[in-house]
Amino acid sequence: MSETIQLTQELIRRDSVTPEDKGCQIMIADRLAPSGFHAEHMCFDDVDNLWLRRGNKGPVIAFAGHTDVVPTGPLENWSHPPFSANIIDGMMYGRGTADMKGSIAAFITACERFVEKHPDHEGSIAFLITSDEEGPAINGTVKVVETLQSRGEHIDWCLVGEPSSTEKVGDIVKNGRRGSLNGRLSVKGKQGHIAYPHLAKNPIHLLSPALTELCEIEWDQGNEDFPPTSFQVSNLNSGTGATNVIPGTAEVVFNFRYSTEVTHDELKQRVHAILDKHELNYELNWELSGQPFRTASGQLLEAVQRAIFDVTGYQTTLSTSGGTSDGRFIAPTGTQVIELGPLNATIHQIDECVSTADLDTLSEIYETLLTYLLVS
Amino acid sequence: MSETIQLTQELIRRDSVTPEDKGCQIMIADRLAPSGFHAEHMCFDDVDNLWLRRGNKGPVIAFAGHTDVVPTGPLENWSHPPFSANIIDGMMYGRGTADMKGSIAAFITACERFVEKHPDHEGSIAFLITSDEEGPAINGTVKVVETLQSRGEHIDWCLVGEPSSTEKVGDIVKNGRRGSLNGRLSVKGKQGHIAYPHLAKNPIHLLSPALTELCEIEWDQGNEDFPPTSFQVSNLNSGTGATNVIPGTAEVVFNFRYSTEVTHDELKQRVHAILDKHELNYELNWELSGQPFRTASGQLLEAVQRAIFDVTGYQTTLSTSGGTSDGRFIAPTGTQVIELGPLNATIHQIDECVSTADLDTLSEIYETLLTYLLVS
Repeated sequence: MSETIQLTQELIRRDSVTPEDKGCQIMIADRLAPSGFHAEHMCFDDVDNLWLRRGNKGPVIAFAGHTDVVPTGPLENWSHPPFSANIIDGMMYGRGTADMKGSIAAFITACERFVEKHPDHEGSIAFLITSDEEGPAINGTVKVVETLQSRGEHIDWCLVGEPSSTEKVGDIVKNGRRGSLNGRLSVKGKQGHIAYPHLAKNPIHLLSPALTELCEIEWDQGNEDFPPTSFQVSNLNSGTGATNVIPGTAEVVFNFRYSTEVTHDELKQRVHAILDKHELNYELNWELSGQPFRTASGQLLEAVQRAIFDVTGYQTTLSTSGGTSDGRFIAPTGTQVIELGPLNATIHQIDECVSTADLDTLSEIYETLLTYLLVS
Repeated sequence: MSETIQLTQELIRRDSVTPEDKGCQIMIADRLAPSGFHAEHMCFDDVDNLWLRRGNKGPVIAFAGHTDVVPTGPLENWSHPPFSANIIDGMMYGRGTADMKGSIAAFITACERFVEKHPDHEGSIAFLITSDEEGPAINGTVKVVETLQSRGEHIDWCLVGEPSSTEKVGDIVKNGRRGSLNGRLSVKGKQGHIAYPHLAKNPIHLLSPALTELCEIEWDQGNEDFPPTSFQVSNLNSGTGATNVIPGTAEVVFNFRYSTEVTHDELKQRVHAILDKHELNYELNWELSGQPFRTASGQLLEAVQRAIFDVTGYQTTLSTSGGTSDGRFIAPTGTQVIELGPLNATIHQIDECVSTADLDTLSEIYETLLTYLLVS
């Protein structure tokens, strides 16, 4: 069994559900100390973060990831205990195998081999690890990035280990993500008895035409890097539960996943314009979850593409689809960001698993990447 | 203090929140026994019902009402304890003063005086009293009516003591009610991650245009007896609570208050046609709460109009607006039904109250009504 696989098992057996780290980060720091990585533990409230760095020069390549995992769901539904890391027919089962302790193990073994071969490499190698990527993510990567910025420490390239692959390892890398903008809308009506509608104002009736319009709009057509901007309502709640009462308010939660063809300010303005046109009495609170980012070219992207081809023999495909990741916090500092990790077919699901062969392949790709970036 | 007022206070001081009767009906039966009323207590599950009758001949005039009251809401918000029946400046405060223990007291004293003056009146006088008019109303008036029907006992005229008045006592009587039809709609979509809308179907987005259409339709224009049919959504709920999940279903509860210009079957067909036109995948369950009824003319209406004018000096106005009442269960047997009671301004509210002078006036009107109907 390879060191990458053993290390993944050790990490999986720590049940570090967000925001718990359960000692993973200390284990990682201890493991990489002999390879010359200096550890800095940054705790913010209940979140553990780890900043590891080997070298003092630029450029800096940082491997980014998280030790927290999402909850298991009902244990009885798992074929194998979710923190057992059992390997059956080349697949390792467990919560976090794909998302993303396997990538962290592959980061580590790649660095160990690389450092042994190239102890005097150019630049620096870093790790940015958090125990809250799956949760509110308020005291995780974003705070570490702020700390680094405040002392002028810059990351040039960032490889996020999120599971980007779909059919075979490395077939897809994410070279950007759409922006994510949340809105919480409260439409005010006037409560009353359903038999006297003229004395009430039904907020559902007032909202409905505006909502129809919001659902039908083409916000943009996307571009060659991003799919079209998408508007989705996640929650709509109104009513007292009684069948004879017209409710006083209707609460709507919606989300934009948006391309670089619009800005979040433009989206806000357009939503307000529609609500105002329908003469709604409302409150609307916005939360910008992440701005869109993109690494369209550059040394990191080129090195990733070459490393994948060298190790696997096939060309990778670029994508900006899917959910957000901590890349949204790192990219705004001017860092080139690429996400490359194992297959995402089982993440957040019962019987999450990863191919052990894929983890070995990933470790090789990461090592090759370091060679392209830090060896002239 | 008049007997009507004293009797109202005794009833109010029994905290008979639906479906409790708290001995009110036994008190009523005992009180009217000396006047020759024969009592029949009909209990169905947890609901007490009382059928009182004086005389064996037709025609039968029945006074209908309920001893149950709606909950008080927060006690600390009341200026006077809700079961105190305190009288301040001619207003009696308490839950049920207007809806509708005051009417019941006025029924009783009216009958007592009438019987004393006209012991050999024509026809019969009856009381139909339930302890569940405000609740599900499944084991109340509807069951008593079924029992009477099954033994061939017919009510010719029914005076319901519901608070019909708005500005001054007797200014409005209800000579009918709109129908009430409830719908429970479940629109099926497909749950998914908000970042992958193409893999999900958002039921809120699917529903919205159909809902907009339902809210905008003019179902009819009403007629001289009924206001236009009204469609209102009382509850709309969809969403898992998470901001990144497209929900799988949307649940809508709506209600029609409908005139005699449409039937409930027509309304159902029109709703289904709209949902089908929008190609929704849905389940829709209907509940017919009450068909519309109307007493457009006849001896009862005429007697009520004359009695109000005789006692108050003003003409009453006919109306079919407002919520449902137990009249919906009595009218379908061919009974003429009129609702006449005190002012409805404070019903179901904190500090419900009634004018004591109005209760005395009501008692006079009810007595005069009996004279018009049962004395030739």
